[in-house]
Amino acid sequence: MSTFLTEKYGGLRPYTPGEQPRERKYVKLNTNESPFPPAPKAQELARDQAENLMLYPDPECRELTRLIEERERVREGQVLLTNGSDEALNFAFMAYCDVTAPAVFANITYGFYKVFADLNGVPYEEIPLREDFSLDVDAFCKAKGTLFIANPNAPTGIALTRAEMEKIISSDPARVVVVDEAYVDFGGESCIPLLDQYPNLLVVQTFSKSRSMAGARLGFAVGGEALIDDLKRLKYSTNPYNVNRMTLAAGIGSIISEEYFANNCKKIVENREWAAAELSKLGFSMTNSTANFLFARHDKIGGAELYEKLKGRGVLVRHFTQKEIEDYNRITVGSMEEMQTLIKEIKNILEELK
Amino acid sequence: MSTFLTEKYGGLRPYTPGEQPRERKYVKLNTNESPFPPAPKAQELARDQAENLMLYPDPECRELTRLIEERERVREGQVLLTNGSDEALNFAFMAYCDVTAPAVFANITYGFYKVFADLNGVPYEEIPLREDFSLDVDAFCKAKGTLFIANPNAPTGIALTRAEMEKIISSDPARVVVVDEAYVDFGGESCIPLLDQYPNLLVVQTFSKSRSMAGARLGFAVGGEALIDDLKRLKYSTNPYNVNRMTLAAGIGSIISEEYFANNCKKIVENREWAAAELSKLGFSMTNSTANFLFARHDKIGGAELYEKLKGRGVLVRHFTQKEIEDYNRITVGSMEEMQTLIKEIKNILEELK
Repeated sequence: MSTFLTEKYGGLRPYTPGEQPRERKYVKLNTNESPFPPAPKAQELARDQAENLMLYPDPECRELTRLIEERERVREGQVLLTNGSDEALNFAFMAYCDVTAPAVFANITYGFYKVFADLNGVPYEEIPLREDFSLDVDAFCKAKGTLFIANPNAPTGIALTRAEMEKIISSDPARVVVVDEAYVDFGGESCIPLLDQYPNLLVVQTFSKSRSMAGARLGFAVGGEALIDDLKRLKYSTNPYNVNRMTLAAGIGSIISEEYFANNCKKIVENREWAAAELSKLGFSMTNSTANFLFARHDKIGGAELYEKLKGRGVLVRHFTQKEIEDYNRITVGSMEEMQTLIKEIKNILEELK
Repeated sequence: MSTFLTEKYGGLRPYTPGEQPRERKYVKLNTNESPFPPAPKAQELARDQAENLMLYPDPECRELTRLIEERERVREGQVLLTNGSDEALNFAFMAYCDVTAPAVFANITYGFYKVFADLNGVPYEEIPLREDFSLDVDAFCKAKGTLFIANPNAPTGIALTRAEMEKIISSDPARVVVVDEAYVDFGGESCIPLLDQYPNLLVVQTFSKSRSMAGARLGFAVGGEALIDDLKRLKYSTNPYNVNRMTLAAGIGSIISEEYFANNCKKIVENREWAAAELSKLGFSMTNSTANFLFARHDKIGGAELYEKLKGRGVLVRHFTQKEIEDYNRITVGSMEEMQTLIKEIKNILEELK
């Protein structure tokens, strides 16, 4: 930190991304990446753009925006593309939070919400999860401020139904509800069909997980035209060319490859159910995850210890030190082969404990 | 704008990027893009990443950062890569401006500085250019606040020498000076060699112009480790994976293609000098541009009129309505063929006026 840094950012504690180690090759189940490459058409269209990089991308991202609007059955002007969904989330914190509208989110959820609140100098309230790690619907209904709800939630994987979400969204039409659907494609119910009824609803999605494009950085917000106009105003005041040409092209290739996408989601769900059953047999307890990860604990071994032992055996999972969840690990659902390796190494670790 | 938007952004007036028309094919000399494709190696490495997009990029961007540090002869920790140089500039406004340190920039310069100041809610002061459009070095020395200096300046193309810049930077070591060197590779003197002496200096550069990568979105800040640490803190609190895999790879390919880069810069300078001489013969007066554009006016035809007439003939240039420069047009230096078309169409337009 320099002596020049303005006071307001002096206490900022940045987000810590999952490890990206390079010293050895791991079975990498720690950052919820997809084990499958992006759709062949996405790769092809991205490659085609390499020779055109001297030209700026379309700042309005018209072609891809239109395709997403069609797929999600919303009107023109209801979608804004961003440099990963983190950018959309930050725009929402900027636009809809201030001292009169504090940010409200669960005490156990995506760790970046707290950072965004601090970055933007806005107060926040954390709503404790219930004993079983589910979101407390009534508490969210009663809370005052702008709500940020990851659905399915991370790192628990637990989803609220669309009906439960609607109860929250309709509880106070005078406040914005931001629903972060990063993991919705693996079994959750999207709130997008509610958009017509609720002008206070903003849904954020990403191409990182279900569309195998974490490395391309592409996300989007979808909401009523007025909310999207707010976010556009921020985009054009921050970085008008926020999404590059290759990523836009890859996004187009992904959206027109619906079958490839659906098939990959199906495989992840199958692998998740297989791994959950195996972990269960080995004595693990888990939340009911509808995401591309499992959230698991074992009576005989602590979360940090299991994380370390797995790392020693070449399998990376994600452990969070937050007290309420320190017994758990978040395990990304990878390919069947990766899941088999995971189960094999866990068996070895449990064997050693005997 | 929605009724939910926080008051602080209610009056924001976003930046207007140059036209990106699609209704017909123009000779496009309006957004300072390069007429040359990116280096073959940049294209190749970018294409190679398309199949790896399911994996997050390295948030630390180590390989490319190291290459830039080597090329610029600075130490490890002195470079931060960003999603276009606009992101680096915004981080600098965030980090170094507040009510006690207003932003200070020329009254005629990159139009985004004013937007960044408004976005971040910081006051700003505009220093008038001198009669000949050159920067007023003494006025900048005396001004109080954080200085933002485009060098060469846009849209005038006029550069200060390194000695003049040093006078400004050294005039007050207690304030940060941000030097925006977007156009430096076409004949300007970079301030990077001054970094060791001045911990208050931050230089921002881009791959958009001289490296033909406007469509990839890649920029960087270079400064003392303490300043770069400040900007990293903001990056990791905003968007840790701010640069995608394909763009990082293209950046590496560009940096290792030094000869291709140098040769393209040389061609642009040659085409600029040729076009300037031709325009001069036709009665235009111009600033002494060391950038990849010319800034030209003619006694017989207004700036807006020439812009419109050229557009009607399929040649796009950039006209600004700001009073002090409304007689001028900013004309990007393209290929020799494009410059010949420009001159031909201008001749036709002047002929018609007779």
